[in-house]
Amino acid sequence: LVSVLSSAIIVYRLPWTWKCSKVLMKFIHAGLNTIAMILAIVSMVAVFEYHNASNIPNMYSLHSWIGLTAVIFYSLQLFFGFAVFLLPFAPASLRAAVMPIHVYSGLTIFATVIATALMGITEKLIFSLRSNPAYSESPPEATFVNCLGLLLVIFGIFILWMASRPYWKRPPEENAKALLPTGGSPEGTEAESAMTDSGNADKSDLRISSEAARKQNLKLDEAGQRSTM
Amino acid sequence: LVSVLSSAIIVYRLPWTWKCSKVLMKFIHAGLNTIAMILAIVSMVAVFEYHNASNIPNMYSLHSWIGLTAVIFYSLQLFFGFAVFLLPFAPASLRAAVMPIHVYSGLTIFATVIATALMGITEKLIFSLRSNPAYSESPPEATFVNCLGLLLVIFGIFILWMASRPYWKRPPEENAKALLPTGGSPEGTEAESAMTDSGNADKSDLRISSEAARKQNLKLDEAGQRSTM
Repeated sequence: LVSVLSSAIIVYRLPWTWKCSKVLMKFIHAGLNTIAMILAIVSMVAVFEYHNASNIPNMYSLHSWIGLTAVIFYSLQLFFGFAVFLLPFAPASLRAAVMPIHVYSGLTIFATVIATALMGITEKLIFSLRSNPAYSESPPEATFVNCLGLLLVIFGIFILWMASRPYWKRPPEENAKALLPTGGSPEGTEAESAMTDSGNADKSDLRISSEAARKQNLKLDEAGQRSTM
Repeated sequence: LVSVLSSAIIVYRLPWTWKCSKVLMKFIHAGLNTIAMILAIVSMVAVFEYHNASNIPNMYSLHSWIGLTAVIFYSLQLFFGFAVFLLPFAPASLRAAVMPIHVYSGLTIFATVIATALMGITEKLIFSLRSNPAYSESPPEATFVNCLGLLLVIFGIFILWMASRPYWKRPPEENAKALLPTGGSPEGTEAESAMTDSGNADKSDLRISSEAARKQNLKLDEAGQRSTM
């Protein structure tokens, strides 16, 4: 689940995808998130069935409260993302206004899912290792699972770093248009698919334009960062 | 601890502090973080002493591993923040290069501390409510503490939102200079303290310049955001 979620988050951040059309990338982003949502629902059904079969009460722990809240917000995120960014009805101004919220709530849900997983690991270790050996005696399995939890945190920090760096940002359409002398249509998406269709001779041009776009992203960011110094 | 940490994080984000000199704000930021560090050390010593007095092993849980890692990185963050941003030796280029890392690792440590607190709450509830009543029976105290955990998450999300919005960003020095016709010295800090020293007549000017700076921040951000659409 976490790995599908992370691929959905960083799918725009892979430089080799910048030559793909934006519509294709949006579909991949939405598709991966839909897969993650299905996995989340399947695993929640499994938990409820296991609890009911073993006569364990449902939804009593902080882990379950925060986890269910995250899944509810995740489904809202999917619904609004689909309605605003995938369906062709929303005007550009609405998309621009919603985008910062979409990005922040997506990353927040991701971080909350990791926190929920850490609470779940803690619960599971305490419940499974009651005695012989107890969790507090640090048997190898406890150390191993602790390491997995620590790796999960490191992995999450790395994904959030990639997702928040302007260096990895997909270059804005303006750049692609300005740097390609052939001049695309006013729609950035069309201009980009045209770029993908062109032959190998354009590959180096494309690389240069990505480089330039990256630098412009950095410049924009620097101007923003300066104010926090 | 979390509340001192959060005030340290958002201290640059309070519009009424934008008329204070940057050096003063840096000292407040560093001072609040030092208080939080002292609180973290005091509470860790208390935990170790309690464990030793009750013959509970130390550092066996995922909560303790991630918590200690966070405190170690927090002390590194304090040390490097002091060396680079508070001492007058680092050149502006180094500060500009380190700033994004300082901001990201600060926010990451904050989020990790919240995740650690959630694991600690989970542990404490399981250990304290073993039976009569058990945690799984949802006694009022368990529901109450779960609510506190949920509020902690909401509070953390709110603080990270404030810290990452360009709207709340302290305006860059360039703006203050450009908008004040009196024209400051080349050092932004000096220009700002001069602003604070001037009389009440300047107050409205100041408010206008903050407004304009805010708008410029937004414009910069929009340009950056557009590329993720």
